[in-house]
Amino acid sequence: MKDNIDLIIFGAQGDLSRRKLFPALYRLDKAGLLPDNLRIASVARHDMTTVTYLKQIMEAIQDGIKDAEWDRKVWMRFQRRVYYIKIDFSQKKQFGYLADWMEKNRRAIFYLATPPDLYGSICKHMEGSGCIFEGTSVVLEKPIGHDLISSKEVNDAVGKYFDEKDVYRIDHYLGKETVQNLLALRFANRIISSQWDNTCIDHIQITAAETLGIEGRWSYYDKVGQLRDMFQNHLLQLLCMVAMEPPNSLSSNEIRAEKIKLLRALRPIGIDKVDEYVVRGQYSNGWIDGKPVVGYLEEEGAEKSSSNSETFVAIKVEIDNWRWAGVPFYMRTGKRMNAKHTEIVIVYKDTSHSIFSGKKEDSSNKLVIRLQPNEGIELEMVSKRHSLRERLSTEKRVLNLDFNELESDKRIVDAYELLFLELIKGDQRLFVSREEIESSWDWCDQIIEAWNKNKSETRKYSAGSGGPAKAEVLIEGDGRSWHGQ
Amino acid sequence: MKDNIDLIIFGAQGDLSRRKLFPALYRLDKAGLLPDNLRIASVARHDMTTVTYLKQIMEAIQDGIKDAEWDRKVWMRFQRRVYYIKIDFSQKKQFGYLADWMEKNRRAIFYLATPPDLYGSICKHMEGSGCIFEGTSVVLEKPIGHDLISSKEVNDAVGKYFDEKDVYRIDHYLGKETVQNLLALRFANRIISSQWDNTCIDHIQITAAETLGIEGRWSYYDKVGQLRDMFQNHLLQLLCMVAMEPPNSLSSNEIRAEKIKLLRALRPIGIDKVDEYVVRGQYSNGWIDGKPVVGYLEEEGAEKSSSNSETFVAIKVEIDNWRWAGVPFYMRTGKRMNAKHTEIVIVYKDTSHSIFSGKKEDSSNKLVIRLQPNEGIELEMVSKRHSLRERLSTEKRVLNLDFNELESDKRIVDAYELLFLELIKGDQRLFVSREEIESSWDWCDQIIEAWNKNKSETRKYSAGSGGPAKAEVLIEGDGRSWHGQ
Repeated sequence: MKDNIDLIIFGAQGDLSRRKLFPALYRLDKAGLLPDNLRIASVARHDMTTVTYLKQIMEAIQDGIKDAEWDRKVWMRFQRRVYYIKIDFSQKKQFGYLADWMEKNRRAIFYLATPPDLYGSICKHMEGSGCIFEGTSVVLEKPIGHDLISSKEVNDAVGKYFDEKDVYRIDHYLGKETVQNLLALRFANRIISSQWDNTCIDHIQITAAETLGIEGRWSYYDKVGQLRDMFQNHLLQLLCMVAMEPPNSLSSNEIRAEKIKLLRALRPIGIDKVDEYVVRGQYSNGWIDGKPVVGYLEEEGAEKSSSNSETFVAIKVEIDNWRWAGVPFYMRTGKRMNAKHTEIVIVYKDTSHSIFSGKKEDSSNKLVIRLQPNEGIELEMVSKRHSLRERLSTEKRVLNLDFNELESDKRIVDAYELLFLELIKGDQRLFVSREEIESSWDWCDQIIEAWNKNKSETRKYSAGSGGPAKAEVLIEGDGRSWHGQ
Repeated sequence: MKDNIDLIIFGAQGDLSRRKLFPALYRLDKAGLLPDNLRIASVARHDMTTVTYLKQIMEAIQDGIKDAEWDRKVWMRFQRRVYYIKIDFSQKKQFGYLADWMEKNRRAIFYLATPPDLYGSICKHMEGSGCIFEGTSVVLEKPIGHDLISSKEVNDAVGKYFDEKDVYRIDHYLGKETVQNLLALRFANRIISSQWDNTCIDHIQITAAETLGIEGRWSYYDKVGQLRDMFQNHLLQLLCMVAMEPPNSLSSNEIRAEKIKLLRALRPIGIDKVDEYVVRGQYSNGWIDGKPVVGYLEEEGAEKSSSNSETFVAIKVEIDNWRWAGVPFYMRTGKRMNAKHTEIVIVYKDTSHSIFSGKKEDSSNKLVIRLQPNEGIELEMVSKRHSLRERLSTEKRVLNLDFNELESDKRIVDAYELLFLELIKGDQRLFVSREEIESSWDWCDQIIEAWNKNKSETRKYSAGSGGPAKAEVLIEGDGRSWHGQ
């Protein structure tokens, strides 16, 4: 039964399904990693035949992969797995079509790629139609609520029908190769593991910068803002992977326990500290890639001529535990910034005594874990300057662990491929537990509450810049600076 | 006066002068690093004109550099520096020629590239002819004696005429870029410096393997053997650079003090331990680079049909200090081995707990400092296997700090170039002090004495092999293995 799997995708015509899920599934099939007996039910409300639907999906896959990856034979095999089932999610009766298609002796995975406010009713109707039985599990995409209370409502609604052990909450950052490799770096290298603490590390930076703006989501985004949209989930998950205690094993229980401990150790940022520790920004007009772009308030669909909603947030995060006391984590994420890049930078302390001459800024070790663009890991070392004239001075050398460079024949795996494999295996290691979500919201809610009470200023920054100047002050006030600036 | 320098080379027709000293001097001149007022007196016993001598030297330089480095303009400038002075070293009177050439208002450096048994008489005759005055210094090539007593005799003979602060003893291993870079690695990188001890390092290996045999030196070599010829000087100097405490500055006094402390902390190997801790070998016939070669006792010039002299020695060295207690240093050097390579390998301990699957031998961090061939530094890290099938297993990645690769426009500087520059600067940092030499001999003498008393066996190994099997046992008996095997 283990390999007799039905994957049921709700919202199978949506953007996520087309751009991410189906290309990932096709690639796994091509690599021989999908079980032979895996079937895919694509569930959506539109009236169409499986044949018509397959044509759409074929185009979506071809758009999502490189030309060289297309293989008609693989597609012929892949398309035989796919069934289109039309269901109007509000009509309980129509879930009977799905129940008819399912077979009780197969393992079913429901992938909810729909707006989260439908999660509860979809689960309820599935239950009512007999779709949920021993061995079924459910996959939830973000966002799970917009604060602690609403996230509890979503989790409760799903939890009525599924045990926590059968709920897989996606944070696709956890599926990235580099994030997974961070675990190997941290826990399989003595030279790294033995100094991953406040005795050797000066501070850590986490940046997730986008050049994109709101992309037609204004009315949704304006209610949410960057703290909720990016920080509460992706950035805090990265923080967990960087800062959690070493788990006793790689099992999902052990890893989740450490992540929860870490999230609970985040020092709360209340009214008295919020304007010192948190920088809130909103982009005005500017230039991206040599082209003029409008400001947030002039975006298509903007419903107000003024808004406090942040498109950028930078936070100095402190962790109250034995490992990290005294080591600040400078974290920032924003839209319409100067470059698309996501990276984690571990800045080691300088040696306690200096006997070489050389530029101060080239004197410290840094470990740079880059998620975007070009996933990879770099270690900045200090080396003797290779000069007969300056024989006692040093310079910076960068050791490159770039995946692409080292293994030119191997492509970087998309996060969703990895996540599907873990789903099929039934391992929750790369998925987010309810307690993590709730701890994250709990911490973020305080900041939002403090903003509201303090009427904290949302600072303007030009599109295409590095964020508001105050974000520089946040780190430079401590005598440090953002990596690469 | 600082730049008014006379460099007087004794033994100016010898192998060292032709192969190393003059090519190095030419290259420094080409790089604009020789003071304009530096003159070179080439002193030897042969009767010839400076013009004839210059012709020889030009050929030697051309042989010693790459074609592209030859620049006739540089040579025209260089040759004007050179004077040939004929002196029979046994004739005190002839040193008058040198005294006549020298000028008291210039700094003089005597470079003794002669057999060491002439050092004393050369110094004596120079003194008697008025060549030694304030601001003269002397450079000594190895070997300084063949044991503690004879080294004291050589040092005393020279010390009669020169203060220790004016004596520069060459160990050209100290002039290698990689050895110098080791200092930057150790003392300018927090990630390295903070775990350079017995808490993080499992053991260290130092290997200096040659493919060459005795090269016509049989009757000399048979009296000396590999322990005296290579280990007492080069290998113990490398050990010092790897294991000494961090000096408070890069001054020669501070560095020498730390090296001496280290040499004094070497645990003596006496009669009871010598056969367990030391492996002595002698090559028999075999194959090198696909060609048959004769054994040590069949070499041209071999005067005996049996000899205990070792052409290979491997020693497990222990250091009795706080940093290295419990960390063995496995050191070996030999002739007619399978490849020419000199390297230092720092093997870190495994992580204290293992949560990944993967081959045991790929699980530890190693820092490989390669002196020959291709000077460079590599760091072996453990990375997540980049495979969708084996998602929780790890593999080894090598981070390359190869000088040649990174800076293709810069050539590796020969050790003698660096040494000459330090000589000209008057800095003893890269030269060996009397106390170091004597401490090294003291430690080696005990081993030789123990060999003699124990009649320790010299084990045969085939030319072109990795040394006697017992050398594998030396390290494998401790559950470890030589790097790269």
